[in-house]
Amino acid sequence: MTLRIVAAPVPGLPEVEPGDDLAALIITTGAAIGSGDVVVVSQKVVSKAEGRLVRLSDVQPSPRALELARALDKEPEMVQLVLDESEAILRAERGVLITRTHHGLVCANAGVDRSNVPGDDLACLLPADPDASARAIRAALPGRPAVVIADSFGRAWRLGQADVAIGCAGLTPLDDRRGRSDHGGRALAATIDAVADQAASAAALARDKAGREAVVVVRGLDRYVTEEDGPGAVAIVRPLAEDLFR
Amino acid sequence: MTLRIVAAPVPGLPEVEPGDDLAALIITTGAAIGSGDVVVVSQKVVSKAEGRLVRLSDVQPSPRALELARALDKEPEMVQLVLDESEAILRAERGVLITRTHHGLVCANAGVDRSNVPGDDLACLLPADPDASARAIRAALPGRPAVVIADSFGRAWRLGQADVAIGCAGLTPLDDRRGRSDHGGRALAATIDAVADQAASAAALARDKAGREAVVVVRGLDRYVTEEDGPGAVAIVRPLAEDLFR
Repeated sequence: MTLRIVAAPVPGLPEVEPGDDLAALIITTGAAIGSGDVVVVSQKVVSKAEGRLVRLSDVQPSPRALELARALDKEPEMVQLVLDESEAILRAERGVLITRTHHGLVCANAGVDRSNVPGDDLACLLPADPDASARAIRAALPGRPAVVIADSFGRAWRLGQADVAIGCAGLTPLDDRRGRSDHGGRALAATIDAVADQAASAAALARDKAGREAVVVVRGLDRYVTEEDGPGAVAIVRPLAEDLFR
Repeated sequence: MTLRIVAAPVPGLPEVEPGDDLAALIITTGAAIGSGDVVVVSQKVVSKAEGRLVRLSDVQPSPRALELARALDKEPEMVQLVLDESEAILRAERGVLITRTHHGLVCANAGVDRSNVPGDDLACLLPADPDASARAIRAALPGRPAVVIADSFGRAWRLGQADVAIGCAGLTPLDDRRGRSDHGGRALAATIDAVADQAASAAALARDKAGREAVVVVRGLDRYVTEEDGPGAVAIVRPLAEDLFR
């Protein structure tokens, strides 16, 4: 059987602190990473390295945050952070806030959360520009492998969370096969493969979810790894006007 | 680097014909498949083996199908098949029909399509009961590996298609980690991992999309492989009343 896709965590990554050089930490592990590999980094360590941590005791909830917090039984300071990170509130019911972030990402709590963050007073925000984060890590890694910044998102219609690419560099995020043929020569129907999201999902299966394995190398996607950094994961955001799936 | 997840196609699977014993064909390839493996089978070959092919020339479009076909610029016979396979039409615009199938799956055209189907007159339907299909294949494979039936679905909010599990047997479809802790001891937030869907996505990355590699073995998910066939992929369908993500 030919090996096709292999996803393996990079062992020995130390706890990441604000200001850390994440690429340097990855290099220090001595993990063998080749140019055709995809390095999938969990959002949490990218945010930590970039200092995207906020003290809840420094947050001043607005009247709207106080009202939402009361209705949803959430902490007003957390709700304020979610509002700050969002361009639109899509749902606010049953204790759940689903928003569209300033990046255009649709997820619970605008990606703001407190798991795997030290202390009781800190919350972690998504990176300000995850595609830029991916490009910076890529540029600093020997061989310039592709880089994906991954986070776990809930989905419409289906239970459970799947990891998706909120940032990427050097990886074709969407493989557009429209116009190509099946092996009978018939034109394939709507077929744009979500390559970066599926790479994030493959990496998620390899990761210890307690948060100790923040970096996973996915091998075998060389055909999607590009010299240019490419459009990034922002290209995956479906224009609202075209969204027939929600 | 420890290998964690490996996805590799089973080579040498012959063209599948109606009435074929799919498990027997997989065994004939001589592929090494262990009890802890997940055998991901693309929906198309399952449907073909189960004879879920319909001659379009045998389909009599209803007035509603004729009307929708006109509005969407689709073949009336195809629209009739989509209506037959659906319990609700969610969208019918811009040439796209998105429906909820009788299985509860939300996808374009109720999963009815014509790619990788011989001739010009045949359309392929989803398996009638994909969880049952998965159980039957599992039971017939030596060692009873887990089995996933995969199809490529569009998603809300994000462009591109990702493979999901429309059927499964012997695999925990959702890993509910609520109540477990992060490595700082804090309870993890909403964390139910879509294991079966992510296994389907990992397999999709390994598959030649021209349709010749219908079966992919995913290794390294032993911790999710169960003696019991389990609840199947029907457990992944999000109850409509609870769906805040759409």
